[in-house]
Amino acid sequence: MKQIELEQVLPSEIERRSFEIIQEELEAMGKKLEKDQAPIIKRTIHTTADFSYADNLIFSPHAVEKGLEALKEGAVIITDTNMGLAGINKKRLASLGGEAFCFMADKDVEEKARARGTTRALASMEKAADLFGRGGVSRPILFAIGNAPTALIHLYQLIKEGRIAPSLIIGAPVGFVNVVQSKELILTLEHTSYIVARGRKGGSNVAAAICNALLYQLPGYNQ
Amino acid sequence: MKQIELEQVLPSEIERRSFEIIQEELEAMGKKLEKDQAPIIKRTIHTTADFSYADNLIFSPHAVEKGLEALKEGAVIITDTNMGLAGINKKRLASLGGEAFCFMADKDVEEKARARGTTRALASMEKAADLFGRGGVSRPILFAIGNAPTALIHLYQLIKEGRIAPSLIIGAPVGFVNVVQSKELILTLEHTSYIVARGRKGGSNVAAAICNALLYQLPGYNQ
Repeated sequence: MKQIELEQVLPSEIERRSFEIIQEELEAMGKKLEKDQAPIIKRTIHTTADFSYADNLIFSPHAVEKGLEALKEGAVIITDTNMGLAGINKKRLASLGGEAFCFMADKDVEEKARARGTTRALASMEKAADLFGRGGVSRPILFAIGNAPTALIHLYQLIKEGRIAPSLIIGAPVGFVNVVQSKELILTLEHTSYIVARGRKGGSNVAAAICNALLYQLPGYNQ
Repeated sequence: MKQIELEQVLPSEIERRSFEIIQEELEAMGKKLEKDQAPIIKRTIHTTADFSYADNLIFSPHAVEKGLEALKEGAVIITDTNMGLAGINKKRLASLGGEAFCFMADKDVEEKARARGTTRALASMEKAADLFGRGGVSRPILFAIGNAPTALIHLYQLIKEGRIAPSLIIGAPVGFVNVVQSKELILTLEHTSYIVARGRKGGSNVAAAICNALLYQLPGYNQ
């Protein structure tokens, strides 16, 4: 294999070794993470190899605690992409009595979006509010938004209108049009917990990684 | 909505406007992209909001051409994550007669990995070689590796052993253990086309974005 030297690490040890490297490099950069936030920040860096998340992830007070409590009670996670849905550890979520949904490809969401001239992402948040908001099934609800700023903006409005009261919003759309603004909007919420990837960066992978970082902290998880 | 000002863009215009912004910023940075590589680099930036991909994506000669030819002939795309699989536009791929697979969660892959003490990623590459390599179904094959360096390293070995001859390798694992090395290994291949995200960065989202950037360039695509 030419001059390329591979590190000898057992399959089962790769993740542990990765987190060790991340920890070492964070220390070398002089970054000190809050104890409750550290697993989430580190898993996001693990997923992206991008250390800017050590600065960009913004947590509302007790956000991690709120997220963990909701998951312990068998929460519903709503994502705005099927990629995000694929990335969430649904087996682990199910072991806690939870479920994850993405409504983006649903026929009724597509039809509503077309009829009203909105994005499907917005229509998918409407569906979430209809199902799990005021008057719907009473279950703790987490939103994991990794793609569409329009989803996040509409979620803000649904909260302001009192139609839904999520336990936690993971706000990590990525991109260039209204992405930064959509996250700043969530950061203005005073009675809703959030973990927001401030700026342009984020993604379905980031949203899923944050969900999994929460899931893996709860008792009963063996990797 | 407080002082946060949203840009007024029609849903159908968001992607076009995003690519415009990316183009403007690349120009402001003085980056000039090769014509055939530009759609791939820009879509990767669109997916990640990370302009470092303008420097980090390494193309072997005629890689884009080779990828497009394979897709036109109804290629098989093999990915190493279900997230990557979720991100690939499978409807578009099917319209060209192609199919995408991820073998990571397959029972036989899990068993083989456990029996041999390898990663499942490695075992999933073995399965791909059994199905579509020498002696298997004769179809152009693309690999879109967005997670596991062990997949990429094993793919290198399968190629060296003459067991498989992919039309294109998209090499974009992300992370800290053997990730950089696995990509450098692919860059040493002389008779295999590749698009490699050099360095630690990459991801299932990046691998899927590169597949889609290829798919969207072929005739018959209407967004």
